[in-house]
Amino acid sequence: MIQTFKLTIEYDGTGFHGWQRQADRLTIQGSLEQVLSRILNQPVTLAGSGRTDAGVHARAQVASFCADTNMDPQALKKGINSLMKQPIVVKACVRAPDDFHAQYSAVSKEYRYVILNREEPCAIGRDYVWHIHRPLDLDVINRCCPVICGTHDFKSFENTGAPRRSTVRTVLAARMDRAACDRLVFRIRADGFLKNMVRNIVGTLVDAGHKKITPQMFETILSARNRSLAGATAPARGLFLHQVSYE
Amino acid sequence: MIQTFKLTIEYDGTGFHGWQRQADRLTIQGSLEQVLSRILNQPVTLAGSGRTDAGVHARAQVASFCADTNMDPQALKKGINSLMKQPIVVKACVRAPDDFHAQYSAVSKEYRYVILNREEPCAIGRDYVWHIHRPLDLDVINRCCPVICGTHDFKSFENTGAPRRSTVRTVLAARMDRAACDRLVFRIRADGFLKNMVRNIVGTLVDAGHKKITPQMFETILSARNRSLAGATAPARGLFLHQVSYE
Repeated sequence: MIQTFKLTIEYDGTGFHGWQRQADRLTIQGSLEQVLSRILNQPVTLAGSGRTDAGVHARAQVASFCADTNMDPQALKKGINSLMKQPIVVKACVRAPDDFHAQYSAVSKEYRYVILNREEPCAIGRDYVWHIHRPLDLDVINRCCPVICGTHDFKSFENTGAPRRSTVRTVLAARMDRAACDRLVFRIRADGFLKNMVRNIVGTLVDAGHKKITPQMFETILSARNRSLAGATAPARGLFLHQVSYE
Repeated sequence: MIQTFKLTIEYDGTGFHGWQRQADRLTIQGSLEQVLSRILNQPVTLAGSGRTDAGVHARAQVASFCADTNMDPQALKKGINSLMKQPIVVKACVRAPDDFHAQYSAVSKEYRYVILNREEPCAIGRDYVWHIHRPLDLDVINRCCPVICGTHDFKSFENTGAPRRSTVRTVLAARMDRAACDRLVFRIRADGFLKNMVRNIVGTLVDAGHKKITPQMFETILSARNRSLAGATAPARGLFLHQVSYE
């Protein structure tokens, strides 16, 4: 019986060459497909909600696949987690409607980016933050955030190299908050993201937090549709795919 | 000018062969002494508040040393953190009285042990928890905790191999609490700890949480002064040296 499954997956992206399968390189998709094919005794191809780059983590990436099996989703989840040798954990496995597709059925995604903002770096959890020793002005950053909310052409915050029909996306929410232990957490929810879009926005927000640019200049950068005006790409290790929402 | 310094140190113990210097092995003491000797241009010997085993972490280990230098403690801290290539961070560096010694001047220490108690393991932060999939009864565990509070002979919870004058220690506080994201945190404060004492207590508390032993049996185990009656040694990766207190 052909069934469609939906997996919710946590991973530590540190040691991986990103989500997407590549020959002879450790990837999240590749590792999962290998284990799934072994359990189900058939070739399995996963569709992720989107790719994540090398070093980017996920609290709840979503992937779907079809397989000819009567296996119970709970048993499948246990099987994957017990065979998986990599830092990848299936948090949920459920049957999904036949037309469910992790990428095309998604209506929005939330990413979070964690900055450690204090003089000294951290040792514990160092692969999960971007350490910035100079103080950031959170008020200035949060005067920039509303600029990107709404429907805009985000070409200024896109790195080239990924196929896409349009560079227009709708940001549903964006803000940065102070969290425990000198951390700043940036949350952004959108109907889709361009390549490196979150990391390029964070890099530019950090320029604003350091008073290198004003919120007005931030607005000018967005409307210029020119990547060279925006800030540097923030490191991958602070970035988490936090949630993928479906109807 | 001979000065005494007090360092407060965070480290991720995962890749280290413990605190104590060993020839040709990566240790926290060895890594710090190497960097300090280079900065101060003289051999430096650190005294830690105590050893931590391979894989055990520290939020705030304390170490002291003497050196012939006029260097400012803030500059020394910055120097160590910028030269250090290992996951070791000096969080504070201050001048201390000449008679200060990180081990002998300490009046108490607090360790914390983190258990992830749910069916599926975690990927993010997997080196910082002990994953136990079967539910633990926190009430039973917290009926055991008062048993170890006070002054007792902790021989039942000691692994052999470390020199000590006595196996009597005073536990000032011990309890386990539920924390966010399916975590249980065990906190224990004492005037000193025997080799593997926290991990052996945790291993035995987990037996109680799984109803393999009762709180009454836990009491019998403590008073028997016999290691073979207590539970297994909990894995190193869930253990954190949280604080060392001085007068």
